[in-house]
Formats: sequence, structure tokens, C-alpha cells
Amino acid sequence: MELSQGDDAAVVDVPIGKQLVMSVDTLISGVHFPENTCAADIAHKSLAVNLSDLAAMGATPAWFLLSITLPKFDEVWLSKFSESLKQTSNQYQIKLIGGDTCRGPLSITVQVTGLADKNSYVSRSGAKLGDLILVSGQLGNAALGLAHLQQKLTLPVDLVQPCVEAINRPLPRLELSDFLTSYASAAIDLSDGLVGDLRHILDQSQKGAVINRDVLPVNDWIRSHQAYDFALTGGDDFELCFTMPVKYISAVDSWNQKNPQCQLTEIGEITGSGYLLVGNHQTEDLSDWQGYQHFE
Amino acid sequence: MELSQGDDAAVVDVPIGKQLVMSVDTLISGVHFPENTCAADIAHKSLAVNLSDLAAMGATPAWFLLSITLPKFDEVWLSKFSESLKQTSNQYQIKLIGGDTCRGPLSITVQVTGLADKNSYVSRSGAKLGDLILVSGQLGNAALGLAHLQQKLTLPVDLVQPCVEAINRPLPRLELSDFLTSYASAAIDLSDGLVGDLRHILDQSQKGAVINRDVLPVNDWIRSHQAYDFALTGGDDFELCFTMPVKYISAVDSWNQKNPQCQLTEIGEITGSGYLLVGNHQTEDLSDWQGYQHFE
Repeated sequence: MELSQGDDAAVVDVPIGKQLVMSVDTLISGVHFPENTCAADIAHKSLAVNLSDLAAMGATPAWFLLSITLPKFDEVWLSKFSESLKQTSNQYQIKLIGGDTCRGPLSITVQVTGLADKNSYVSRSGAKLGDLILVSGQLGNAALGLAHLQQKLTLPVDLVQPCVEAINRPLPRLELSDFLTSYASAAIDLSDGLVGDLRHILDQSQKGAVINRDVLPVNDWIRSHQAYDFALTGGDDFELCFTMPVKYISAVDSWNQKNPQCQLTEIGEITGSGYLLVGNHQTEDLSDWQGYQHFE
Repeated sequence: MELSQGDDAAVVDVPIGKQLVMSVDTLISGVHFPENTCAADIAHKSLAVNLSDLAAMGATPAWFLLSITLPKFDEVWLSKFSESLKQTSNQYQIKLIGGDTCRGPLSITVQVTGLADKNSYVSRSGAKLGDLILVSGQLGNAALGLAHLQQKLTLPVDLVQPCVEAINRPLPRLELSDFLTSYASAAIDLSDGLVGDLRHILDQSQKGAVINRDVLPVNDWIRSHQAYDFALTGGDDFELCFTMPVKYISAVDSWNQKNPQCQLTEIGEITGSGYLLVGNHQTEDLSDWQGYQHFE
């Protein structure tokens, strides 16, 4: 199956004054999604996790390339995959410009290109002493959804759908792009879990942090079961974590009033060094906590 | 392993007046290279097959992203892979800007971005009636090399090395970029075999072709064994096939005098319709011949 427009490569024009923001991610069956995940969810997630990288950089989606590896040619599967991919790409206004398909163990690679005004993109390295640390949405739902699908726990009925959707149909927070480029000093998307991903910002910015467990935006089940690990180290939330100077705090209030679907929560502060979790009248050292490890 | 410069995505500047030429290809162990291929050859080939797409478009390499899937973390393997990748990327002046690594069945996805002057790239759709059809290099060596590695035939000693190199270390014909943008009406790289790949040019250009088996650039073994199928339908040569107006024929002579390492051979002509192979006093209809099929 040929996905390109019929040439060896796709050709696109870049608007003057824009920089390219480029990322690639591979999703492997049984590693990045449960083996019985449906074609539509796999298509959505493959694109969404890449769009999430663009969101973290404050970039606007432009084009993507797709490489699918399939165990066998399955017309029904491919048609469901394509339909869902079209839906998600329309929703986030990104255009499929080419790709290839081959035979092998199921995996999907998406490469996205976004655009950013020159030198306006957000990196991981700009966090300053005293900056606030914020996250979007709720944390831990994806890890709870995965645990539910793996029958490792029983969720209350009303949490099943939102948690399964969190793991299968993550929402790239592209609505935050303008907010981030205006106010954020550093940002990252939460793919491997808050503790590990925030550590990347700290490493790149050469700073420390204190985060407050008691204010983490989590659902009632996590709070009542004190199961904060789902939010702290559970991966796949694809929310954004970012830092910003205290002086912009009123922009957060104003954002939250206008965007009930994407609430921002202040969860801590950038310090000179160290990495601490406070809450429940205790302090824990996060320095040695690990995020999701791709090779264990 | 994080391959990017530490951010969620890479950021690059595009020179004014250039268009982007983008392609992606996945190589799967046991499908695109024999399972016992060494790390260095896999690295070279993953990048080379993508560079070959840029060569076919007449583009100049700029940046690439890499996504590696590995069954287990193997430092020795990765170090050999990286060393070879660095060598090939230096040789063709393309810069690694990011990527990801994850665990799963061995496969490598490379996404390349090249640059072309506005509207100067070469497509598959420009072949005109009466244009000459040319190919670079020798055809069939890669398929012979694969057959040798799979112990399906015994090659003469002096052909073993060039044929095994053809399958494991294909040379992207980037030296032809300027020639193609100056003279070619259409071009494609030979990844799936001449008959199937040339058909893409014919389909996109809505033309036919006659190719002459007797003048195909093949090694002595293929010629003496009349084993032209290696050249006609054997994949993985990564030579270029292109069409050009007859009036430019002197440019070919002049190219061939200056470039002994990359000889161009006229193998046929574009016709109004049909797809024929002549030679050895016979005519064969190629219309139903198949190139390499990814799903059989």
C-alpha cells in the first residue's frame, strides 16, 4: 500500500518566518498499547502522542508521515485505522503527506512536523528559580485505565470510561500552544510519568523542584485510596507539565475560567537543587525515583 | 535512550526559497534485511534507502529522525549501529536531529527531510512520449547478493563481495541530484525492482514504455546465465531510473565520461501506452508482471 501522493517523497512549502518543529514516535503492540486495542484507537493514539510533543513545544501542527507495519494485509483493519486517522488529523488540522506500509509485527511510526514563529518555541531548559510548576488536566487516569484493562484492579463504574479513554484516546493539549509560548519558561509532555518527565526539565534547566502531592489533580479514587503513584509515575497521560514565572499567575486563573475542559493546576515550585515530594505532613526525596523505563 | 537534543521535538530553520522534500521508510528484520545482518550494515541501509528517495526527487539531504525498536538493550550493538550511522550521515551530509528508542521486534524507521529549490524537484509524473529511459549503475546485484546469502545459488568468487555489498550497503545516488533536476522529466528509485518501479512512472505519467533486455546494465553472470529476472524484478538495487528528452543525450555521455563510479545506461523509451520488454528477438508483455509485493 502506497500512502504518498505517488512520488518517492512528499514536497511541502514552509511559510516565511517559521521554524520547523519535528518529532517521531513508534508505538508497538503490547508495549505502547494493549494487544487487543482496536484499529481506531491505535490510529488516534499514534498521531496523538506525536501531536502531544508539538503541544509541549508550543508549535502548531502542519504535516505528518506514517509508517505502518502489519502482520498481514487486513482490509477491514486498515479501513478502520484510516477512518480514525482521518478524523484525528482533521480535528487537529494536520495533513498526512506520505508514508509506507510493510509486513511484520504490528507497529506504527508517526513523524510530525509543526511550525513555530522564529525563536518562540518552548524548550525544557528554561525553568528559573522560583517558577511555578503546573500541569494540565488530571494525572493518573491513563495508568488506572491500563490497570483496569489488565484486570489488576476494579474501578468504580463511573471511572471506567474516562480512564480507558485516557489510555486509548489521549488528548494532545494543542489548545495550550499559545498560552505556553506566551507564559511558559519550560514545558514537557507527560508520556512516562510526572516524576520522570519533570526530571527532564530539571536536568535541562539545571534546577531542582518541590512538588506537593496533596494538590495533584487526581480523581476521587486515587485520592481516597492514596494511590498517588498512578499520578506520579504512571505513564501515558499526555497532559503537559510546564513552568512559568509567578507574575503570570493571573493568566492561569483567566485560562481556567475559560477552559473547563483543560484546567491548569499549580503543583509545585522550581528550586535551586534537589527533588522533593511534600504532602500528608511528610517529605520524600524523588531524586532516585524512576519514570517509565523503555529497557528494564 | 533519548536521541533528541533534550526536547520533545527538534527545531530547525529552513533556508528561504527552498521546499521540503520528506520521506519515511521502515526496515524490518527478516523482511528488509536478513536476520543476521550486522548492526553497522543495518544502520547504513536504514539511512541509505531513505536518502535514495531524496536522490530520486533531485533533493539535497538536510535532517533525519530515527526510531529504533530493539528486542533488548545491547550496548555493543547500539555502539556499532551509532558509529556506522554517523559515518553514513557524515558522508551524505545529513544531520540526525532526534528520535526515540523502544523495546520490541527489531526494526528501524528513518524519516529524512531534504531541500529543493522551489518547483525544481523531480516527480514520477513528468515522462513524455519519446523520452529516453535510463538507469544508473548495475541492476540485479542486490537480488543476487540476497540469493547468495540465502544459499539459493553459488556466485563466482569475484562477484560475492560486490553483490553482498549491493544488498547490505546500497549507495544512494545523490550525486545525480543536479543532473536529474537539470535534465530528467521523471525519476524513481529502484527499491522493488525495475519492472514494478518503472510502472509507477508510467502510471503517474499516463504513458507506456518499451525496455530492451539486451542493453540492461548487468554483471557477466546474469548475462551468461540469461538470469535477467534478477535485474528486472529483483528489489533493493537502489539505483535510479529516470526519463529525459532525447535532446539531452549528450549530457549523458559527458556524465559517463566524468563519473566512472555511476554510469548511466539508456534502456528504453517512453511510448503512448503498453509496457513491453524486447530483446533476444522476442517481445514480452510486462503489463501483468509484478514488482516486490509487501503483502503477498
